[in-house]
Amino acid sequence: MASANFGDIENGSSGGGPCGRVLQWLKALPAKSWGKGLEALREAKKVGEDDPRKIVHSFKVGLALTLVSLFYYYRPLYDGFGVNAMWAVLTVVVVSEFSVGATLGKGINRMLATSLAGALAVGAHHISTLWGGEVGEPILIAFFVFVVAAIVTFMRFFPALKARYDYGLLVFILTFCLVSVSGYRDTQVLDMAHKRLSTIAIGSCTPIMVCIFICPVWIGADLHNLVAGNMEKLGDFIEGFGFEYFHIKESELSSSDTQSSLQGYKSVLSSKSLEETMANLARWEPGHGGFKFCHPWEKYLNVGALTRQCAYKIEALNTCLNTEIQAPAEIRSKIQEPCTNICSESGKALKELAAALKKMTRASSANPHIEYSKAAAERLKLLLKRGIWDDVNLLETIPSAAVASLLLEVVACVEKIAEAVHELASVAHFKTEQPQLLQEPILSQVAITCN
Amino acid sequence: MASANFGDIENGSSGGGPCGRVLQWLKALPAKSWGKGLEALREAKKVGEDDPRKIVHSFKVGLALTLVSLFYYYRPLYDGFGVNAMWAVLTVVVVSEFSVGATLGKGINRMLATSLAGALAVGAHHISTLWGGEVGEPILIAFFVFVVAAIVTFMRFFPALKARYDYGLLVFILTFCLVSVSGYRDTQVLDMAHKRLSTIAIGSCTPIMVCIFICPVWIGADLHNLVAGNMEKLGDFIEGFGFEYFHIKESELSSSDTQSSLQGYKSVLSSKSLEETMANLARWEPGHGGFKFCHPWEKYLNVGALTRQCAYKIEALNTCLNTEIQAPAEIRSKIQEPCTNICSESGKALKELAAALKKMTRASSANPHIEYSKAAAERLKLLLKRGIWDDVNLLETIPSAAVASLLLEVVACVEKIAEAVHELASVAHFKTEQPQLLQEPILSQVAITCN
Repeated sequence: MASANFGDIENGSSGGGPCGRVLQWLKALPAKSWGKGLEALREAKKVGEDDPRKIVHSFKVGLALTLVSLFYYYRPLYDGFGVNAMWAVLTVVVVSEFSVGATLGKGINRMLATSLAGALAVGAHHISTLWGGEVGEPILIAFFVFVVAAIVTFMRFFPALKARYDYGLLVFILTFCLVSVSGYRDTQVLDMAHKRLSTIAIGSCTPIMVCIFICPVWIGADLHNLVAGNMEKLGDFIEGFGFEYFHIKESELSSSDTQSSLQGYKSVLSSKSLEETMANLARWEPGHGGFKFCHPWEKYLNVGALTRQCAYKIEALNTCLNTEIQAPAEIRSKIQEPCTNICSESGKALKELAAALKKMTRASSANPHIEYSKAAAERLKLLLKRGIWDDVNLLETIPSAAVASLLLEVVACVEKIAEAVHELASVAHFKTEQPQLLQEPILSQVAITCN
Repeated sequence: MASANFGDIENGSSGGGPCGRVLQWLKALPAKSWGKGLEALREAKKVGEDDPRKIVHSFKVGLALTLVSLFYYYRPLYDGFGVNAMWAVLTVVVVSEFSVGATLGKGINRMLATSLAGALAVGAHHISTLWGGEVGEPILIAFFVFVVAAIVTFMRFFPALKARYDYGLLVFILTFCLVSVSGYRDTQVLDMAHKRLSTIAIGSCTPIMVCIFICPVWIGADLHNLVAGNMEKLGDFIEGFGFEYFHIKESELSSSDTQSSLQGYKSVLSSKSLEETMANLARWEPGHGGFKFCHPWEKYLNVGALTRQCAYKIEALNTCLNTEIQAPAEIRSKIQEPCTNICSESGKALKELAAALKKMTRASSANPHIEYSKAAAERLKLLLKRGIWDDVNLLETIPSAAVASLLLEVVACVEKIAEAVHELASVAHFKTEQPQLLQEPILSQVAITCN
C-alpha cells in the first residue's frame, strides 16, 4: 500500500485524460497517507526503544513550557511583565536541550549575554541621545549596531569561543540590537532591558530546574559510558578476531552472530566530533554521581583518541579477515598459538579497562592481561625469527605476516590506552578496587600461555 | 608580559600581607589585560588569514541587521508593525549563517514553520474559546501547548527530520506557544499571527538576499573542494611515502618539509560528520557555478567514505614509516621497484582525480595511472612469489611485507575511489575533458614501469 506512487499510477491502466489521473491519485491518497503514518509510527517506536530518555525529555519540555505559560494566565505576574512575558516562553523553547550540560550551557550563556549586552545597549542609547540629537541619533545607533554585530560575529569564529560561548555571542548581538534599536521608539530603555533580563532569567531557570530534577540526562555520564563502551567494542573485536581468523569454533555463537558483533567497532572510527562536543557540554554540569564539578573531561578525549588509533589498526585487521588472498591453513597454524593469545589477552585487557572505567575504579585487573599479551607478542617475534619459514612462498605468507604485524601494534596500542585510563583514574581520584584473587579459568589459561 | 600570573606574583618577593599581594595583582592587571588583548588580536589575524570570507561574513551580518533596523526608524513601516518589528531584527540575527545553504535552510525552515504553527495556533485558540468558556480556556490552551511541545520535541529526534528540519521544528513549537498563549490576553490572534509571519518573512529574506548577492559562500562548492582536497592529500602522502620509506632523496624538499606534507592526511580520518553536515546544507542551495539545484550531493558522501577507507590504510602505512622495527635495507631494496611505482602511480591517479573533480571534468587522465599501478601491483605479487626470500628471517621481513600488503590494498582502494568519482561525474553531467597527449615525462616513466 505504502509503495503506491505517481509512477505506478501513470503506468497503470488509467482511464484517459489528466482528470482521470488526478482522480486516481486522489483515490490513492488515503492509502499513501496511511502508509506514511504507519512508517512514522514505526520510526517513533524505534527512536523510543533505542533511548527511552528521549520520550521523557519530550514530556519535560512540554512541562517546562506549560509551567512558564502560567505567567500569562496569572494576572499579577502578567501585570508586572506584560507582553515581555513572551520572552520567557521563547527562552524555554530555545534553552530546553536533551542533556543537563547543554541546557545549563545555553541557559547560562543566555543570561550572561543578555545582562552584558543589555548594559552595553543602554550605554549606547545614552551616548546616541546625548551626542546625536534628533537627526544623529538613529545614525549613531545604526553605526553601533553595525560595529557590534560585525565584531561579535567575527568573534564567533574563534575556536576557543565557538566551543563554549557560541550561543552566548549570538544572544549578545540579539539583545544589543533589540534594546538599542527599540530605545529609539521607547524611552524606557532601562526598564525594557530590566524586564527582558528578568523574563529571560525565569525562562532559563525553569527548563534548567526541570532538566536537573526530573530524570536528569547527564552528558558527562554519557561521555564516560561512550568512552568505556568504545573500548569494550574494540575488546570484543579483538577477542572475536582470534577465533574467526584461525577458524576456531566459539561455544554457542553462530558465525553470523560473530560477524555482526565484530562490526561494532566501526562507530569508533568516526567518534571524534561527538566526543569533543560531549566533553564541551559536560564542563557545564555540576557534580553528579561520582563526577565532581571539575571532573577531568579532557582526559576522556585522550583515552578516546588512543582508542580511535587502535580502531584504525582494527580496521586494517578487519580487511585481513575479509580479503581474497588468504594464507593457507598450514602457514596460519604456525603463528596460531601466540596470535590467539594476543587476541584473547588484549581483548580481555580492553574489556577489563572498560569495566573498571564504568565502575569508576582503578583498573588494576587489566594489568596481568597486558603483561600476558606482551609476553605473547615476544613469543610471536621469536617464532617469526626462527627458520621455520624456508619452504613457503612470501605471497602466501604476507597475509599472515600482516596480521602478525598488526597484532604486535595492537598490543602496543592497548598498553597506551591502559596508561591513559590509569592517568584518568588517578586525576579523577577513582577509588582503588579491592584486590581480588585471580579466577580459576584465567589462572589455568595463564599457565598454558606461559609455557 | 603576558605570562604574568598569580603564581609569579605569589612566589615573587611580595612586600608582605594580603594587601600587598592585592596591590601587586592590581599593578600587574594592565600588563595582563594588554597581553590578553594582544593574544586576541593575534587570534583574530590568524582566523582572518585562514579564511578571509569570515571577515566579509561579519560585515554582511552587520549590514543585514542595519538594513532591518531601518524598519524601526522609518515611521510608516513602524506604524504598520509596531513592536512586532522586533521579530524581524531577531530573525536576522538567528538566520544569518556563514554559507548560503545554511542561511537558506534556516530562513525557509523558519518561514514555513511559522506559517504552519501560526495557522494551527489560531485553530487551537478558536477551539479553546468556543469549548472552554471562562475557566476552561487556559486549561485547554495549556493542554494543547503541552501536547504539541511534547510531540514535536520527540519528532526532533527522528534522524531524517533532524538532518534537514530540526530548526523548523523548534520554530514550530515556539510560534505555536507564542501565538496560542498570547491569544489568551490578546483577542486579535489572527492579526498577531499575520504580523509575526510578515516580520519573520522580512527578517528571513534580508539576510538571504545579502548572503546570496554579496560575496556568496556556497557550501556546495566548499564540499566539492573539500572532497577533492582530501583526495589530493592522500595522493600527496602516497607519492611522498615511496620516497620516504625507501630513503630516496626528493629534489628540493628537506626531510622536515616532506614529513609535514605527509601528515596532511590526518584530517581526512575524521571528516565524516563535517561532510555529512555540508551535504545536508548544500541541498538547500539554488544552482550556482557549475552546480545545478539537484546536484547529486550524496555522491560526494560516497567518494568521501571511500577516501576515508583509503585514509585508514594510509594511517597504517604511516605507522610502518615510524615504527621501531625497520626492515634492513637489502630486504627493502628487493621490493623497492614495484613499490615505488605503486606509490607514484597511485598518488598521481588520486591527484589527477582530485584535479579533474576540481575542474568539474570527467577524470579520464587518471585511468592510465591506475592501470600502471595495477600492473606494478601484479609485478609486486610475482616478486613476492618468487623464491628470493629463502635466506632472510621473517621478523625482519615483516615490516616490508606489511608495507607491500598495505600498498596492494591501497591500489584496490584507489580503483574504487576512481569508480565513485566517475559515477559522480556521470550523474552530475560533468563535461568530458579534451583528450590530451600524454606528456613526455610520464611516457618515459611508463616505459620503465612496463619493462
